[in-house]
Order: sequence, then C-alpha cells, then structure tokens
Amino acid sequence: MMETNNQISTEKYAADISSIGDAQVRINSFVHKTPVLTSESLNAMSRRKLFFKCECFQKGGAFKFRGACNAIFSLDGDQAAKGVVTHSSGNHAAALSLAAKLRGIPAYVVIPKNAPKCKIENVKRYGGQIIWSEPTVQSRESVATKVLQETGAALIHPYNDGRIISGQGTISLEILEQAPQIDTIIVPISGGGLISGVALAAKSINPSIRVLAAEPRGANDAAQSKAAGEIVRLPETNTIADGLRAFLGSLTWPIVRDFVDDVIVVEDKEILEAMKLCYEILKVAIEPSGAIGLAAVLCDSFQKNPRWKDCSNIAIILSGGNVDLGVLWDSFGR
Amino acid sequence: MMETNNQISTEKYAADISSIGDAQVRINSFVHKTPVLTSESLNAMSRRKLFFKCECFQKGGAFKFRGACNAIFSLDGDQAAKGVVTHSSGNHAAALSLAAKLRGIPAYVVIPKNAPKCKIENVKRYGGQIIWSEPTVQSRESVATKVLQETGAALIHPYNDGRIISGQGTISLEILEQAPQIDTIIVPISGGGLISGVALAAKSINPSIRVLAAEPRGANDAAQSKAAGEIVRLPETNTIADGLRAFLGSLTWPIVRDFVDDVIVVEDKEILEAMKLCYEILKVAIEPSGAIGLAAVLCDSFQKNPRWKDCSNIAIILSGGNVDLGVLWDSFGR
Repeated sequence: MMETNNQISTEKYAADISSIGDAQVRINSFVHKTPVLTSESLNAMSRRKLFFKCECFQKGGAFKFRGACNAIFSLDGDQAAKGVVTHSSGNHAAALSLAAKLRGIPAYVVIPKNAPKCKIENVKRYGGQIIWSEPTVQSRESVATKVLQETGAALIHPYNDGRIISGQGTISLEILEQAPQIDTIIVPISGGGLISGVALAAKSINPSIRVLAAEPRGANDAAQSKAAGEIVRLPETNTIADGLRAFLGSLTWPIVRDFVDDVIVVEDKEILEAMKLCYEILKVAIEPSGAIGLAAVLCDSFQKNPRWKDCSNIAIILSGGNVDLGVLWDSFGR
Repeated sequence: MMETNNQISTEKYAADISSIGDAQVRINSFVHKTPVLTSESLNAMSRRKLFFKCECFQKGGAFKFRGACNAIFSLDGDQAAKGVVTHSSGNHAAALSLAAKLRGIPAYVVIPKNAPKCKIENVKRYGGQIIWSEPTVQSRESVATKVLQETGAALIHPYNDGRIISGQGTISLEILEQAPQIDTIIVPISGGGLISGVALAAKSINPSIRVLAAEPRGANDAAQSKAAGEIVRLPETNTIADGLRAFLGSLTWPIVRDFVDDVIVVEDKEILEAMKLCYEILKVAIEPSGAIGLAAVLCDSFQKNPRWKDCSNIAIILSGGNVDLGVLWDSFGR
C-alpha cells in the first residue's frame, strides 16, 4: 500500500522532506546546481518529453557529493576531527574525500582492487587515503571495520545512512524547480540511497509523481526484493554498470518498498546503447550506471507497459560520468 | 588601433549590438540557452576561474544553429520558399538543415566527401538534402553555385554573412548574464563568424573585456592575418580540428582585425589533451575544435604572456560536440 503524504516522516523512514530541506541549506554553497538538458531527438525516440538532470556534472563527477557533503557537515567538531571512513565502488569514495577536504578532515577509503582506474584517481585527486580490499562486499566491510577501530573515524556508509539519503534528495528539490511540469522521475537503483532521497522529496511535494527505478538485469536485487516483499541479496552480480552492483540496505528498503512505483530492468546492451546516445546526441560523457535511466525509458518493458502510458514529462537522472575512456571504447565493441 | 564603443556599427561592420539583439529576439524560442559549467580542478590547472559556455549542448550539437536560425528566419516568404543552400564542414550544414526544417523549407547542403560521419548523419537526421563535393574549398564553392542556379535557393554562407555573425553574437549576451564577472572570452577561430559576433556583442557591452582567439598551428591563418594586417589564405591546412580549417572572410576579417585582442596558437597535441580533460573532468563530449579554448588557456603562450596575467575570470566557448567516437578513440592514441 502506498503511503500518503502526511505519513512520510523520520519516525518511520531514515529521512523526510524536513531533513532533505535541511540538507539543501547545509550543502548549498558547496554543490553545483546541475543543469537540466533536453533533446528533441531523444524526445522523438522515447515519445515523451525528457528532462535530463545532469548529476555527472556534479563535483566529483556524480550525485554522491550531495550525500557525502551533507553527512560530513552534519558531524560535530570532535567526531569530525577523527575523520571519516567508507567502503565504496568509487564515486562515493571520491565524493567523501572531496567533502572531507573541504572540511579539512581525513577521509579513509576502502576500495576494491578492481575498481575503475578513473574512480581511484578521483579519490587520490581529492586527497582521500586509500586502503585496498578484495572485490567482495564482505572484504570491503571487514577492512572498513578495522580502519574504523584503529582511527576512531566515523563510518559514512555509501547509502544506508539518513544523512546520505537526505543529501541525495536535494536533487528532487532542484528538478521540481527547474522542470516543474514533470510527472515521472526515473532513477538508477543500486543500494537505494539516491532513489530513496529522490522519492521521499518528490512524493512529499507532489504525491502524484511516479518514481521508477532503473536496474540492470545482472544485478536486479531491487526488482526481486519488490516482488518478494523483502530484501533479496543476490549470490553474485554481472553487469557493465559497475556502480549498480550494491544491494538494498535496511534503511533504503522500506523507502523503496513504499515509494518506488516500479523497477524497470534493462539489459547491458541497452545500457551501452543509451550511453552511446548520451555521448552522440546529448554530448554528455557518462558512465554505464549513469545512462541506465535513458535505457529504461527506451526499453520495451517501459514503452509497452500501459501503466506508464501517461508518463509524459519524465525527469531522468544522469547519475555519474566517471568512466575510463579505454573501458568505454571496449564497451562500444568496435 | 582599437575601435571605441560608439564606433561599432553596421556602417562599418557586418553586424552590431542592435542586429545581435534583434537576432536574440528572433531565435530565442528555437535555441537552447546553454549552461555554463565550472570546475575547480580546471581552475586549479589554469590558475584562473573558468566559465565553460557549453554550445556543444546547442541544438545540432554546436553554436552554428544560432546563426543558421537567425539567417533562415530573416528571409522573406518568397525567398524562403525556394530554400537555402550552403557548403560547410558539417556543423553549419546540420544547423541549417534543422533551422530550415523548423521553417518548413528545403535545405541543400554541399558536403566534402571526407567530412566526419556523425556530421553527415546530423544533416540527414535534420532532413537536409546532401550534394557531395571534393574536399577542397574550390570544389565546394563551385558545386554550391551550381545548386544555387538550379534551385533559386538563397546561399547562406557558414560565416561570411551578417545574419550568421549576429546569430553567433547572442552567445555573448547569454554569457554576460550567466557569468557577469568575466573579463576575458576565449573563442575558437576558423572563418571568424563565431568570434566576430561574440567580440562585437561583448565589446559593445563592456569594451574592457578581452576577446582572444584560439587557433590550431596547422591552420593559423588568423594569427598570420593579424600579423600581416591583411587576410592571409594558407596553401594547405593540417590539424585534427576539422571545424577550424576555414579562412577569414571579407566580412569577418575587419571585425577580427579591430576587436580580437590576440590569437593564441596551439598544437594538435594540446587540443587532444584538452579534449581528454573535457571528457574526464567536465564530463562533456566535445569535438577537437570545441576543446581548443581550453587548450589555449592551458598553453604556455597564454600562461607565460604578461599581457594576459590579469585575465582572471575567463569564459571559454566549448563550440561543438559532434565527433565520431571511433575517431575520438584513435585520437587518444591508445
């Protein structure tokens, strides 16, 4: 059952419109207000009006800076002085490093050895201290715990954290100002931090807005979780969208369960095709995870679903642009 | 001698602040108001504050749509009905096709056989009728003349036309509204249509703004022309920046002579490095010609020139983003 507007509160969920509004005030002077781009060619292809919210232009190259900034500037002085630690596929790590640098505190970042090179370089560029782990969730979390114990730093989880969710939710506040006509928002889903914030803010302001998740077939835990009515963790994931391999968390799951209208599952080849359209038509450099919203709006399971027939003005969050040019090229399979 | 503000008029030049203002009113509902992006990483590299005016996000993927739109909607009804014709390296051709389509008139486009594939496809996408020529200026102009005679269409030159110059000048009106603190504008130079409009508008509004041209070493006719005090046409050109191979025209030269403060000549490898920075840091997909302004602000001949030491707030026009991904990859020389 969908919650009604006045039931959205932090008593039940990890964030609400008030914590998202506070986040906006807190991070406003640090974040870019990213532009919304439109393209008549892509409108024609999708038979809708599309509004691309370009979070790939955000500082650090992804929306993650919003949540990281909100979390870091929420810390009290004593806590902050000991620094922060996280495990991340990369964009959150870079974002946290940058936000920590702005506050003048250390950021310890646990990164799997197989993370994309450009994401690792972003962490280094922003002054984060890298600690390597094996490329499994278990290894990442145990290494992070060790660092935590040694430094006394505050753990800033990439998505299962109310401060992070609130920071990401500021995107909705901007979209609704920049493109007030939208009736639908399509959001990449991984751990669920982004879509949780976006859905809470959008539905609080206008409960009739549809919020749709876009997820790769090879990491479709959100679709499976929605179908099962409980969190499903997959034994393994297999997708080109390296930023979308995480599973829903205890704080994001209730929000996804109650406020995400549907999960659109797309194939990797559809993601690659959408990436190519981003480069060639929008002129936006995007990573695979960032292009999945465009893949979703173009795919048959969206286009042919009568439930979404009246989605006319659709915001698509282009979530990040951190891609190795070499990997990109291989993806296009010349 | 530099002209003073009140001497800038259409009595002496092909455009002025009044014709540029008229162009803005005429094309306003058709063009994108492109965003201005900033990057602290690139500010640090250049030791200036940079404001990237993203004309690669313009309709058709380049600034050219502004001039094309102004020219086509300036035609009277009888003239318009016969259509328009042009010869172009590609971006003007696509832009003219799109503007013609919006007015519902035919566009005949003479394109050299070696033009980038994506530019040709843009022309086709927008409904332009392609007529092939050999890849020489002479062949392009003679084929265009033939089409002109057969159809009675109006020739819309890519740059040597007051309507085109006025349309491109609307970029300055937007920049000065979006980033009023700028003291310098760096503009790619080829035939000079873009920089002529930009310089006339900017200097009319604020004569102290420096306007600098960025030009590839292998097609440095503007630098040579400024040095010689007259138009220099080169026997051949050799640069990766395929959009910057044209020479100054009779209408653009006087404006470049009188209002462009200097021409910064850059090497192709500097253009490629700037392109890479656009992709990896700004997340903007750009063609080589489009990235030359960033190359200019980073090169030694700019950085070490005492004349430009106090250029602190610099607008850089990212002029276009139409690039074949394959060619791009080859350029990066993996």
